Amino acid sequence: MIVTVSRRAHFNAAHRLYRKDWSDEQNLEVFGKCSNPNYHGHNYELVVSVTGRIDKETGYVIDLRILKNIIREEVEEPFDHKNLNLEVEQFKDLNPTAENIVVVIYNKLKARLDSRLDLEVTLYETQRNFVTYSGQ
Amino acid sequence: MIVTVSRRAHFNAAHRLYRKDWSDEQNLEVFGKCSNPNYHGHNYELVVSVTGRIDKETGYVIDLRILKNIIREEVEEPFDHKNLNLEVEQFKDLNPTAENIVVVIYNKLKARLDSRLDLEVTLYETQRNFVTYSGQ
Amino acid sequence: MIVTVSRRAHFNAAHRLYRKDWSDEQNLEVFGKCSNPNYHGHNYELVVSVTGRIDKETGYVIDLRILKNIIREEVEEPFDHKNLNLEVEQFKDLNPTAENIVVVIYNKLKARLDSRLDLEVTLYETQRNFVTYSGQ
Amino acid sequence: MIVTVSRRAHFNAAHRLYRKDWSDEQNLEVFGKCSNPNYHGHNYELVVSVTGRIDKETGYVIDLRILKNIIREEVEEPFDHKNLNLEVEQFKDLNPTAENIVVVIYNKLKARLDSRLDLEVTLYETQRNFVTYSGQ
Amino acid sequence: MIVTVSRRAHFNAAHRLYRKDWSDEQNLEVFGKCSNPNYHGHNYELVVSVTGRIDKETGYVIDLRILKNIIREEVEEPFDHKNLNLEVEQFKDLNPTAENIVVVIYNKLKARLDSRLDLEVTLYETQRNFVTYSGQ
Amino acid sequence: MIVTVSRRAHFNAAHRLYRKDWSDEQNLEVFGKCSNPNYHGHNYELVVSVTGRIDKETGYVIDLRILKNIIREEVEEPFDHKNLNLEVEQFKDLNPTAENIVVVIYNKLKARLDSRLDLEVTLYETQRNFVTYSGQ
Repeated sequence: MIVTVSRRAHFNAAHRLYRKDWSDEQNLEVFGKCSNPNYHGHNYELVVSVTGRIDKETGYVIDLRILKNIIREEVEEPFDHKNLNLEVEQFKDLNPTAENIVVVIYNKLKARLDSRLDLEVTLYETQRNFVTYSGQ
Repeated sequence: MIVTVSRRAHFNAAHRLYRKDWSDEQNLEVFGKCSNPNYHGHNYELVVSVTGRIDKETGYVIDLRILKNIIREEVEEPFDHKNLNLEVEQFKDLNPTAENIVVVIYNKLKARLDSRLDLEVTLYETQRNFVTYSGQ
Repeated sequence: MIVTVSRRAHFNAAHRLYRKDWSDEQNLEVFGKCSNPNYHGHNYELVVSVTGRIDKETGYVIDLRILKNIIREEVEEPFDHKNLNLEVEQFKDLNPTAENIVVVIYNKLKARLDSRLDLEVTLYETQRNFVTYSGQ
Repeated sequence: MIVTVSRRAHFNAAHRLYRKDWSDEQNLEVFGKCSNPNYHGHNYELVVSVTGRIDKETGYVIDLRILKNIIREEVEEPFDHKNLNLEVEQFKDLNPTAENIVVVIYNKLKARLDSRLDLEVTLYETQRNFVTYSGQ
Repeated sequence: MIVTVSRRAHFNAAHRLYRKDWSDEQNLEVFGKCSNPNYHGHNYELVVSVTGRIDKETGYVIDLRILKNIIREEVEEPFDHKNLNLEVEQFKDLNPTAENIVVVIYNKLKARLDSRLDLEVTLYETQRNFVTYSGQ
Repeated sequence: MIVTVSRRAHFNAAHRLYRKDWSDEQNLEVFGKCSNPNYHGHNYELVVSVTGRIDKETGYVIDLRILKNIIREEVEEPFDHKNLNLEVEQFKDLNPTAENIVVVIYNKLKARLDSRLDLEVTLYETQRNFVTYSGQ
């Protein structure tokens, strides 16, 4: 029996939608107020969903304490209370749109999970805007 | 990389579950108190999910300001603070069940989106009852 | 020890902000789209808060099964799936603004409670708009 | 047109993660504080999603009053305010992990639905931990 | 300037509404299914609100890291994943109704706070039932 | 009859807990990771509650469209997608703790309201941390 197990997490961060190779004017034209050079920020909410077979022995697909630790090490510790553009390696040359952030998070978590498990990540930038990536 | 981008919206409307070709008694028998001839209403919540490739240039699947405008023009303006049965063209001869409303909204939004984008719409009639349609 | 016990409830209804003694134009000018003559509607959420001493015997301020029944009889049954203007006695000559609705609900519930209990009622018209009345 | 109709429900229960054929020490080692021999508990939230064709006559995929009754009979009545390990037949020899509970609920509901309808069940053990099963 | 600072916390526990000096029948008559001898449980949510003057130096009423630690030590560690009746000292001879639990939590937290700070505690037993105590 | 009318609003901003007259080390010691010199950010949620008599004519305490406009002009436009420390006048020499932000917002809104109306503002920095000020 194949079940999806989901865990919610969160981090607070500053960011700016911005391409280094564009002028501030070009960035403003395309990204609007999200391109404010002084940054703005969000309470990012995360749903990490892992799909796999139920282990007959334990009744678990994955021990949530293990998943919680992986999320803390790969997402919460490096991203929480940080400026994504300036302080998170992966966004030094990548525009931190919600789409790009969710792909970065997916790749970091996927590398830590057993290859038999499928992964989907949903990232809420606000309660009204959110993105989902499952590795396709 | 294929990502789903979702946007939440809402509208408040009155409606009545009702078929013109049935008597009030028949309508009451099948639709219960939802068929009250004097109408009742809901705070409808909407999640519009658009799936497509991340644009390398912008890091967006779709600019959410564009999606927000399409939702406002196609759903919020024509439906908000309206009587769905009496004032919304599409329900003049179509019973406004949640299922029929979500299909109408899907079709209106789909016609406005780039054909390379997939669409899914979830409509919450209440926090406990909701429907999802993705064009199948 | 004086504790406040709260219970959440809900009803779905149609209404129109409207004074009979004003023309439709006057109603429209003051109440905007909330005055649509064909009605609109809401999922009303209710928080009923009762304050009193903890009964030493039971550890209850009030048995929530009793409070739940009073709310059902006084609010849910007469208001749910109704048109407030046309079908609820109290609004035949009273404009069903959130303020007026919460006062009506307060008065109906207060009459059913032990006079030693204080009452406060919060009514959510939407998640963004709500009103509170405590009998002052 | 194929639409998914979802209904939310809930029950409050005590449980313990525990295998009878293991010692308390083994159970504690694998299941941590979730294996407390005196039990702990949750407000379980349930989303039951039924997928099928819209009935042309009624505009319904399924009458939600029928679905609500099935959920009440199969889940709420047998599980609410119960000790899952001691009082629910299905967990007498099955460890009541969220994964195993969602599969049991899925099977009970599936047996009551028209075979042309697809089913998915999501079970929230807490707001941060939840599982989904769709019969695969 | 006097500001109220609130912090949300939670714990999952089993309990039974029950008086030792009553028979199971009497307990069942007064407390209904909440008196199940095998226990049931809840995800308890807590809002701890501390009121006092803003410190001119720091701009804080209270450092939330300190408040968070006090809540963890006084509530989360002793109550989480526990059977309130059997394992929490304060309920050995006190019926763990929501009213009694919120008073116990208030008293534990109040003893740890600077006497110039006022305290109010709200305890959610479910999303629909909650209680508030402020020391009166 | 005196009723409280509440309206929810929100803004997304970057900030840093920081006193100019302290070194980065002192700021870090007192404010921890909230003092990151590169800023972090939040989705701030706001509940603005206005208390006054129901106007007999309209059934309103205050027209919510007017309140909504005041909130937009005084809070959303000057704060949304901004860096509070660098771009909002009031925090040039005031540490933007939640406590200080809520007092600033209260004062800006109070100046715009009829003096017969009482005001209370609640500011959510995250879903777990929030502050309330009512002018005392």
